[in-house]
Amino acid sequence: MVNYSQKGMQNPMRQYNEKARLLVSCKDQPGIVANVSSALYQIGANITESAQFSTNPTDGMFFMRIAFDHHGAHALTDLNCHLLKLKTSSGMTYRLTDPNQRLRVAIFVSREDHCLMELLWQQRTHMLPVDIAMIISNHDLYKKTAHEFSIPFHYIPITKDTKIDAENAQLRLLESRVDLIVLARYMQILSPQMIEHYPNQIINIHHSFLPAFSGARPYERAYDRGVKIIGATAHYVTDELDAGPIIEQDITRVKHSDDVPSLKKIGRLIEKNVLARAVKWHAEDRILVHNNKTILFT
Amino acid sequence: MVNYSQKGMQNPMRQYNEKARLLVSCKDQPGIVANVSSALYQIGANITESAQFSTNPTDGMFFMRIAFDHHGAHALTDLNCHLLKLKTSSGMTYRLTDPNQRLRVAIFVSREDHCLMELLWQQRTHMLPVDIAMIISNHDLYKKTAHEFSIPFHYIPITKDTKIDAENAQLRLLESRVDLIVLARYMQILSPQMIEHYPNQIINIHHSFLPAFSGARPYERAYDRGVKIIGATAHYVTDELDAGPIIEQDITRVKHSDDVPSLKKIGRLIEKNVLARAVKWHAEDRILVHNNKTILFT
Amino acid sequence: MVNYSQKGMQNPMRQYNEKARLLVSCKDQPGIVANVSSALYQIGANITESAQFSTNPTDGMFFMRIAFDHHGAHALTDLNCHLLKLKTSSGMTYRLTDPNQRLRVAIFVSREDHCLMELLWQQRTHMLPVDIAMIISNHDLYKKTAHEFSIPFHYIPITKDTKIDAENAQLRLLESRVDLIVLARYMQILSPQMIEHYPNQIINIHHSFLPAFSGARPYERAYDRGVKIIGATAHYVTDELDAGPIIEQDITRVKHSDDVPSLKKIGRLIEKNVLARAVKWHAEDRILVHNNKTILFT
Amino acid sequence: MVNYSQKGMQNPMRQYNEKARLLVSCKDQPGIVANVSSALYQIGANITESAQFSTNPTDGMFFMRIAFDHHGAHALTDLNCHLLKLKTSSGMTYRLTDPNQRLRVAIFVSREDHCLMELLWQQRTHMLPVDIAMIISNHDLYKKTAHEFSIPFHYIPITKDTKIDAENAQLRLLESRVDLIVLARYMQILSPQMIEHYPNQIINIHHSFLPAFSGARPYERAYDRGVKIIGATAHYVTDELDAGPIIEQDITRVKHSDDVPSLKKIGRLIEKNVLARAVKWHAEDRILVHNNKTILFT
Repeated sequence: MVNYSQKGMQNPMRQYNEKARLLVSCKDQPGIVANVSSALYQIGANITESAQFSTNPTDGMFFMRIAFDHHGAHALTDLNCHLLKLKTSSGMTYRLTDPNQRLRVAIFVSREDHCLMELLWQQRTHMLPVDIAMIISNHDLYKKTAHEFSIPFHYIPITKDTKIDAENAQLRLLESRVDLIVLARYMQILSPQMIEHYPNQIINIHHSFLPAFSGARPYERAYDRGVKIIGATAHYVTDELDAGPIIEQDITRVKHSDDVPSLKKIGRLIEKNVLARAVKWHAEDRILVHNNKTILFT
Repeated sequence: MVNYSQKGMQNPMRQYNEKARLLVSCKDQPGIVANVSSALYQIGANITESAQFSTNPTDGMFFMRIAFDHHGAHALTDLNCHLLKLKTSSGMTYRLTDPNQRLRVAIFVSREDHCLMELLWQQRTHMLPVDIAMIISNHDLYKKTAHEFSIPFHYIPITKDTKIDAENAQLRLLESRVDLIVLARYMQILSPQMIEHYPNQIINIHHSFLPAFSGARPYERAYDRGVKIIGATAHYVTDELDAGPIIEQDITRVKHSDDVPSLKKIGRLIEKNVLARAVKWHAEDRILVHNNKTILFT
Repeated sequence: MVNYSQKGMQNPMRQYNEKARLLVSCKDQPGIVANVSSALYQIGANITESAQFSTNPTDGMFFMRIAFDHHGAHALTDLNCHLLKLKTSSGMTYRLTDPNQRLRVAIFVSREDHCLMELLWQQRTHMLPVDIAMIISNHDLYKKTAHEFSIPFHYIPITKDTKIDAENAQLRLLESRVDLIVLARYMQILSPQMIEHYPNQIINIHHSFLPAFSGARPYERAYDRGVKIIGATAHYVTDELDAGPIIEQDITRVKHSDDVPSLKKIGRLIEKNVLARAVKWHAEDRILVHNNKTILFT
Repeated sequence: MVNYSQKGMQNPMRQYNEKARLLVSCKDQPGIVANVSSALYQIGANITESAQFSTNPTDGMFFMRIAFDHHGAHALTDLNCHLLKLKTSSGMTYRLTDPNQRLRVAIFVSREDHCLMELLWQQRTHMLPVDIAMIISNHDLYKKTAHEFSIPFHYIPITKDTKIDAENAQLRLLESRVDLIVLARYMQILSPQMIEHYPNQIINIHHSFLPAFSGARPYERAYDRGVKIIGATAHYVTDELDAGPIIEQDITRVKHSDDVPSLKKIGRLIEKNVLARAVKWHAEDRILVHNNKTILFT
């Protein structure tokens, strides 16, 4: 049994004043949990949440998320040292995050405001632990709304001819100010260049139950097919349209009497909740991406 | 106002001893409800359930389902006369059914028994108002089960070479004995000839949320795509695979930790309930088909 | 068969320019559907939606909702004449409403704004077919919000001593200006006098799955009981607390790790959607009340 | 950093041939995860699933479930030694279980067979990892069913006068043959003596969404109250009727037109699935009980 009374170990009874999260990925191997939890114990941390997943216990990848209380900057520096050694010895990668460093979000929106309004309201009422740094739109509709929530609004119209310039303008606005882009019913397709700048940092809400009805006009196509349930999907944006890692989905029942406008109205209520959940989980470091799929430590 | 005291009208106060259902389809037109309900009133019927739907009030199709109590065979003959006149004058088509004439069902099954068992149990406990006339399988697995439920079992193996003969053998068994074929995880694709014999009278359960993952191996593909919700779809069988009118769908949440065998187990519980609901609604004359979509009077 | 070519009947082919709804209640009796639909036919109306319900076909109450297109004020006057005769002959009661006369709503709110915001947003985006006449609050928190949506805001503080005066002030504000009161997380219990003024015209959202956890602190009690699902209930307000006719309910799953603040956050999203649906159905005349229960023609 | 190359440690690369589960409870304290995972590492175990929960990180209870692969009996004996030391030093309690030792279940049933049939079918198709040791009933209805599934059936009628004798007969049948009693719509109230023999080892399905409609005739009372959703609850049986720790709940929507027999039919489908999930989780050691609530590591 390990002797934890060795010199230099932090006193775990000291008051905790800081919180942190640790995300770990590596090839699955015996001892990884023991090593990481023992490193946390060495700095006197108290684990408050922990979850792990192996794609395959004998030859797969291992993922872990740990939320813990700690004693401050010095303890965290010590932890980093322990983890760097583990990185060398076991090939694991890790990320330490500070929940007090709130994620900075840019919301992109076009004509429909349901997702925008839900995100703004959830942020204001402390349901969404993020800062909303800016709203960017290719329409001039929500300047007043942005003002009411005291958020900078940038109107950047886009035509086929101005697309590159517009994206460059967007990138200048975002640079070093934003950690996550949320496409809150933003009806423009981002260029690969744009996506490359923010890998697994752009969340889109697609208004169908993917992979059904990917692409344009999903409600119209759902109506034509006569489905009995419609849905919405939040996913990370990749180069392939509507094919990125799925974060969250939800559905609602519809009737034969629901026409396309009715489906759209019903669908909005699903879309906005699905998107808000995905943003919340991202902000809480609950999502890991592997092989174009998400692991959700929710 | 109509004078209902005219000679020959049935006395509505007489005891009702029979039940019937009336299904009506026609081009939408003013007066159709008035005409039909007045015909029912003329025979002293009492409407117990009624539902209607117009695809479009100004230029669409009109559908109606009425369940009613009546005074017996003579009253029904009179009703038929009234309805035939309406048919001539308004172009409406109609169908009168007798709930006491229970639907005769053939269950087709291959290796997996979850849908079969659910249908057998629901039938035995009077949750499914049908008679199960026979079980047909391309495997020899469920003879004992069929025997326990006192239902004839027919083992008809199918290979690529014997497919036509096998279907002919099936058709001979079904002929004039069966009103509805239920493909309860029957893993053979029916030939167009077979489907033609039973238009909108073959219900299949597909183990995905259609139109996602139509065709083979839906759970494997759902796993690969990383969906967060899986589903099942009951539909009428048409010549195009998994593209017939959808009757019912349902879903359940899954996790990143659910592998393919787990998805299959979880999915079974959805499949069997979705299929049983579809069969029940069909048996209760609650489904109308129009333009490859279903109208559900549930 | 009825002869519909009699003199004076409206020509059904004339362009429809008006919409109306008819709600009917009476003791169940043969002919009621025939009589009402024939009255509608006489004025050349076209039925676009119809639903009915009998508590018991042989000795119960009958309820019907019909939405129809008609030719204008004269036609409606004619219909009223027909219906008045039916009222005399069959004891039926009825109500004709005009969808263009939008329901005037007062929103009552205390400290939590989730229901308020959802109603305001759904109203602004035409998802809720009502006019919001005023917001009344016992707190001074949402004046700015009301202003942003251009809605009059009335701050009426309430203490135990001022309750009667405060309600009288509320009644003066409401009088002849409001058809429906929505208690959008309004944390005061209305007096019987207040309730009597608005029978089945006050909708409350209770933050539990009634009848579980009626009364105070439902989320705390749900947490203590260890339920796996929490819910919300929209109901009409009656003299007995949380015991009025239930309009709509919905639920969401929770985990052992959800503490009371977490339950409250999760619950808000259910509450606001359940309340908005109830208000929408009320505004569309889809709710009938009988024996402290609702009949929903949705 | 801990040195894991110390003498005597098992070689983690050796082939795993056994599986086990470890359940831990203790007062929350730093180091508990490190100590337990390090003990597992010492025996060369590979963790395949892990979940933990603290009621309160600063002054609460800590619970953990770990599933792991190991090298056989010797390794497990070593682990037991490590854990016994931890038990002494930290006050933790633990339980090691072997997934190959299948839980032995007795199903108690009265007149309704839906839960019984679902459990039998799920067991037969390997969806439920248990052995069904016997069926006990106060009615003589399901002897044939039991025989078809090759399970001993015991008919023990119960009247008010014979209740004690009947329970004694039941206890003799159960003794040392059964690990879990499942009340699959068993309509007798167990005596405190009976419950005391099987603490947190008796699962009941109650046909309502608890705490609503605890006690008798829940569907009748749900109908009278006019709820829009009905539910079912699986819980451990305690002395207080329907008040034991809730394991799982689920719901389904109902309509104003659903009468009591209809509610009962709809409810059956919820009941049987809820009960089967609860039994599965119990069999997989996924349920811990604390303060009359369950912690579900699902």
